[in-house]
Amino acid sequence: MAKESLSPRFDAEFQSKLEELLFWRRDVRRFRRESLPDGLLARLVGLANLAPSVGLSQPWRFVRVVSPERRLLVLENFEAANAEALADYSGGKAALYARLKLSGLREAPEQLAVFAELAPAAGQGLGRRTMPETLQYSTVCAVHTLWLAARAAGVGLGWVSILDPARIAQDLQVSESWSLVAYLCLGYPQEEHDDPELERHGWQARSHRHADVLTR
Amino acid sequence: MAKESLSPRFDAEFQSKLEELLFWRRDVRRFRRESLPDGLLARLVGLANLAPSVGLSQPWRFVRVVSPERRLLVLENFEAANAEALADYSGGKAALYARLKLSGLREAPEQLAVFAELAPAAGQGLGRRTMPETLQYSTVCAVHTLWLAARAAGVGLGWVSILDPARIAQDLQVSESWSLVAYLCLGYPQEEHDDPELERHGWQARSHRHADVLTR
Repeated sequence: MAKESLSPRFDAEFQSKLEELLFWRRDVRRFRRESLPDGLLARLVGLANLAPSVGLSQPWRFVRVVSPERRLLVLENFEAANAEALADYSGGKAALYARLKLSGLREAPEQLAVFAELAPAAGQGLGRRTMPETLQYSTVCAVHTLWLAARAAGVGLGWVSILDPARIAQDLQVSESWSLVAYLCLGYPQEEHDDPELERHGWQARSHRHADVLTR
Repeated sequence: MAKESLSPRFDAEFQSKLEELLFWRRDVRRFRRESLPDGLLARLVGLANLAPSVGLSQPWRFVRVVSPERRLLVLENFEAANAEALADYSGGKAALYARLKLSGLREAPEQLAVFAELAPAAGQGLGRRTMPETLQYSTVCAVHTLWLAARAAGVGLGWVSILDPARIAQDLQVSESWSLVAYLCLGYPQEEHDDPELERHGWQARSHRHADVLTR
C-alpha cells in the first residue's frame, strides 16, 4: 500500500543544509573533556539503528567502553599499531606521520566499539549469500548514520582504525561471532574546521573530482 | 587554526528533519521509468565524494552502467544468484522468498556500480595497515552519503547485493585493483512507504532496540 500522503518533502533549504553537514562533517580527534548530556548517546545509537542493512539483519552491535582499565588496553593497542605504522615510513614522511594526531583516545569522553554480528538470525541470510561482507557494510552504514546525527547535534566523532581489531574484541570480551568494524571517539570538539586535519597538516590533499564517473 | 566563525549551526528543526530522512530512507526497488534531470546524478556523486575515507584515500570509484548489453549481463548475474539463493530455502520460506521483489534492475533509469580501489595512491596507506578493509568501508560511507542525498532530492535508491561481484567487475571491464562494493539502482520511486519492503511482506520485522548498548 502506497502512503503518498505520509511522504515527507525535503525542500531546497533542507537539502542545502544537508550538503553543509556533509561538507563539514570531519573526523574529529581533538575533544573537550566535558561529558555528553544524559540520553544523547542513546538517542544517537537509536538513530544509527535506522541505517539500511542487508536483509533487514541490523547486524550492528555497540559497546560503550567506560572502564579506565579497558580504555587503557585500547590506547596501548593503538599506540603499538601506530608505532608499527610509523616504521613503514622514512625520512620526511616519517617525521610528518609522527607529528599527526591520529586519535582522541586520551581525551574523548565517550568511546564506542562497533561490531558486526557475523551470524545474525535476523534477515535469514537474505542478500548476503554471494557478498557476506554486506554484514560489515551494513554496520558501516550505522556508523556513518551515527556520525552525521552526532555532527548535527554539535558532537564530534573520530574513527580510529589503527588498531589490532581481534585484540579489541578479546579485550572487550564480546561474542566470538562479533567482528570489529570501527572504534569511535565522541565528544564536543575543541575546534571546528572546514578542511580535514590530514589535508591541513600536509599529509594528503582532497580530490574534488565531482563527476568522475566512468560510463559503461 | 580554529574557524569558529565558520562553524555551521544545525538547529532543532534541521535535526528533526534529518531524523525524518533517516527514518524514511528505504531501499527502493520499484522505480518509475522517467530519467533523472540532467546533472542530478553528477551532483549526487559529487556529494558522495565528501564522505569520510581512511587516510583521505577517497577510494570510491563510480561506474554508470548505460549500455543495454551490459545491463542485461548484470540482470542475468542477479537472476542466477537469486535462483541459487532461493534454493537455500524450503517450504513456506521459499514461497515467500520467490514472491519478494529484490531488485529494480529491469526498471531503474540509472544504475551505478560502486567499486573500492584497493591500491590507492591517495592516503599513502595511513590508517589501513591493520584494517585494510577500511578501503571498502570508506566506499560504503560514500554509498550511504549518496543514498541520503538522493532521498533528500526525492530520488529512490536500491542496493543490489545478490550478485557475483567478481563477474560484475569482469563484465564492466574495470581495473583489476577495483573490488565491487555495491550495485545501485536509482530513479524516482513508484511508491513511498514508511516501512521496509521486507517487513511489509513478512520476511523480517525490524528491531527497535533503541539503546541496546553493552557497557564494558
